[in-house]
Amino acid sequence: MRIARFSIDGNVAFGVVEGDASTEGGPVLDIIKGHPFAEFERSGQKIPLSKVRLLPPVLPNKVVGIGRNYAEHAAELGNEVPEIPVAFFKPSTSVIGPGDPIAYPSFSSELHYEAELAVVIGRMCREVPRERVKDVILGYTCANDLTARDVQQREKQWARAKGFDTSCPLGPWIETELDPTDLGIMCTVNGEQRQLGRTAEMVRSIEDLIVHITEAMTLLPGDVVLTGTPAGVGPLNVGDEVAVTIEGIGTLTNKVIKRG
Amino acid sequence: MRIARFSIDGNVAFGVVEGDASTEGGPVLDIIKGHPFAEFERSGQKIPLSKVRLLPPVLPNKVVGIGRNYAEHAAELGNEVPEIPVAFFKPSTSVIGPGDPIAYPSFSSELHYEAELAVVIGRMCREVPRERVKDVILGYTCANDLTARDVQQREKQWARAKGFDTSCPLGPWIETELDPTDLGIMCTVNGEQRQLGRTAEMVRSIEDLIVHITEAMTLLPGDVVLTGTPAGVGPLNVGDEVAVTIEGIGTLTNKVIKRG
Repeated sequence: MRIARFSIDGNVAFGVVEGDASTEGGPVLDIIKGHPFAEFERSGQKIPLSKVRLLPPVLPNKVVGIGRNYAEHAAELGNEVPEIPVAFFKPSTSVIGPGDPIAYPSFSSELHYEAELAVVIGRMCREVPRERVKDVILGYTCANDLTARDVQQREKQWARAKGFDTSCPLGPWIETELDPTDLGIMCTVNGEQRQLGRTAEMVRSIEDLIVHITEAMTLLPGDVVLTGTPAGVGPLNVGDEVAVTIEGIGTLTNKVIKRG
Repeated sequence: MRIARFSIDGNVAFGVVEGDASTEGGPVLDIIKGHPFAEFERSGQKIPLSKVRLLPPVLPNKVVGIGRNYAEHAAELGNEVPEIPVAFFKPSTSVIGPGDPIAYPSFSSELHYEAELAVVIGRMCREVPRERVKDVILGYTCANDLTARDVQQREKQWARAKGFDTSCPLGPWIETELDPTDLGIMCTVNGEQRQLGRTAEMVRSIEDLIVHITEAMTLLPGDVVLTGTPAGVGPLNVGDEVAVTIEGIGTLTNKVIKRG
């Protein structure tokens, strides 16, 4: 099931996406009664997807990112695969939705895309045992872990390099029925392919990452875990359109603008 | 003015602290009508401070910490004063209030206290010019930037070492009328003095830090900026009582317990 968050006529709602581009009349949203993190029903009231503005599918309290979780990507930046996963935060103020503009940070001249599979947490949890990880996951979406690469190299901690406003596009929706272990993951810039990998190449599995994170901290419903990016990262310029596509989920597209 | 957040009979409220330990009958809270981040009035309804449970004076969306902002502290850990401030995040799930227990993290065997002056942001802001910094600050409180020192040394990014549950005690209240530039700051463990410094020793001023942070990201009302710790950091053990005292604010006391 695909759960989207959207606004229409100034109201915000969740809906279940039905159909796709091949459906006659295009996909529609069946508006949800209740909240997707609890019990909910489909209202049967349907709106064409083309009539709404999609929002970030979730408003996380925190986003926990993982660095260097694909061996080829670690190598391309001259790093080794770390013995311990590299965990960092992106704040809620960094999150934007599909179609929202990425504002080129004023303090960087080397903005990079990083296509990533994002895990959306469904329930409050800490010290999650490996075999229970699947129970705390609501679903999956696409993320772009935008990084000011020059700032990342200059500053020891990545709060500014990976935490600036608009640095965390999420979307287009949450896919709740998906085996995440071997999905194609791609990034294009202006339609040209830049990254192409498979989630099977992750050094640490989603289970390993959630065990590692929740050993230290509570995850809340709506929190997001980013699982690392495959090889092929590179620069973005003002005017570029960057798209992250993950097999079985969809495509998250954002355009880079000059920060106003 | 001192603004406290507290619970009484299951309700949460804000109040203005009047009087102190020397006042006959002890200090009282004048309950606030409205919210301290907006226009508010004192109701005139007063409760003895001793009758309430103080809560974290603010529930931050994010806490931005600054590392190595006192030269003597940087030196004691074998670090140089960084050319660029070292900014990191502590998540909202790390925040506890005065008197709340600090749960010794299961994945560390070297928990350290770090007494710090905390700045409470009063209004949404980004790219704050130096001369406007005072306008975005609501006030100041005490913080303990608890750090799993062994984990910090092992893991390249500090998300787990400084972001674990209960790693950010804040309190006891927000002091809104205070010149923060030269305050005594002290940490005691079981009544013995361990840290003693002055905020005048900061390498970067509060203005510098807020300019640096908001160059990259929006701060929201209630967000907190930690300004670094003076020399004298050291270990805590289960059973220890750690107290951070800042001149003109008050004392934040927490006890270390075994994580349950």
